[in-house]
Amino acid sequence: MVLNMKYPIGAKKSTKKYNNYGNRGMGLEGDLEITNNYYLQTDQAIIHKKPTPITIAKVDYPSRLEAVIKEGYFRTPSTTDYNGIYKGKYLDFEAKETTHKTSFPLSNIHNHQINHLKAIFHHGGIGFIIVRFTTLNQTYLLTVEKLIKFLKNNNRKSIPLDYFKENGYIIKDKYNPRVDYLEVIDNIYFNGGNNEKNKT
Amino acid sequence: MVLNMKYPIGAKKSTKKYNNYGNRGMGLEGDLEITNNYYLQTDQAIIHKKPTPITIAKVDYPSRLEAVIKEGYFRTPSTTDYNGIYKGKYLDFEAKETTHKTSFPLSNIHNHQINHLKAIFHHGGIGFIIVRFTTLNQTYLLTVEKLIKFLKNNNRKSIPLDYFKENGYIIKDKYNPRVDYLEVIDNIYFNGGNNEKNKT
Repeated sequence: MVLNMKYPIGAKKSTKKYNNYGNRGMGLEGDLEITNNYYLQTDQAIIHKKPTPITIAKVDYPSRLEAVIKEGYFRTPSTTDYNGIYKGKYLDFEAKETTHKTSFPLSNIHNHQINHLKAIFHHGGIGFIIVRFTTLNQTYLLTVEKLIKFLKNNNRKSIPLDYFKENGYIIKDKYNPRVDYLEVIDNIYFNGGNNEKNKT
Repeated sequence: MVLNMKYPIGAKKSTKKYNNYGNRGMGLEGDLEITNNYYLQTDQAIIHKKPTPITIAKVDYPSRLEAVIKEGYFRTPSTTDYNGIYKGKYLDFEAKETTHKTSFPLSNIHNHQINHLKAIFHHGGIGFIIVRFTTLNQTYLLTVEKLIKFLKNNNRKSIPLDYFKENGYIIKDKYNPRVDYLEVIDNIYFNGGNNEKNKT
């Protein structure tokens, strides 16, 4: 049972409608949703985005069957947004967009998300980040191994675009699946160690 | 940054405070939270509960840094509540309590959650349900294999307690970890096929 959203007729000045699905199909998050649905429908992988963590403070019950959250707060996620299973392997990643043209600010990813990815790697899972440079219209996949390498050797607060070009993998734009990151994962982890790199 | 919960001084009649953490340490969900934290701290496994999926309809911004959800609705989850990685394997489960004494009503688990668990199994992951009979103070783990077997051979709307006793595994009460379900998983999947069963 999915409850319908109810939009207010007269919204307060400081109140904004929150479009959960307004961006579906637009932006990296929407593209990934379509892509993950495609993987699911074609039975290639089971990968889902975790719901946004929310602390609920007040709930109204206008009827016995309906519950309306009247006060809630966004929490900082303790893990990455996406995880699932692909070819029997545990897979885990975070996806971010940036309007920057020459580097990706690390402030976009929480420290505990990076630590989570490191732990996933040490437990034998596949971990990575997907970063889209929206202005350049380029989307990169960077494995947690290469992310760790960067953090070890740098005190910089952003990862240069060049680092993505040299150590990451570009994810080509497609019609379907829109952001075919599993093609990259195949090349890195499932082609008998033949780390063929998708060059720009 | 975790925003503090703000409780209303004068709550409306139909409004209830929602204790996100009120049950921490109590009930199966609280026990599993403590257990999963223990696994995480001891670096045995990385298993998290997914946040409750919520459709947000209205958000207030009383200040630039604060966002308050003013209208939201609970969504039906499309997957199980728990997943993660253990010994390199993808692990996925749903946990439920029942006050029933002789059977577990299948209405407690959504159909798409069962289908999700089946798909996980077919993709090579470890899937199961944890069911606590609160009145009996007994907690069982039933693998998705045995769940599928039951659903194939039965049209019943509940799984009898006896089926859990014969096909499931009891999870012993402990101090720490409180609900040591990985001990059961070890016995089933990681002891070289030695499916030693923890009998009551």
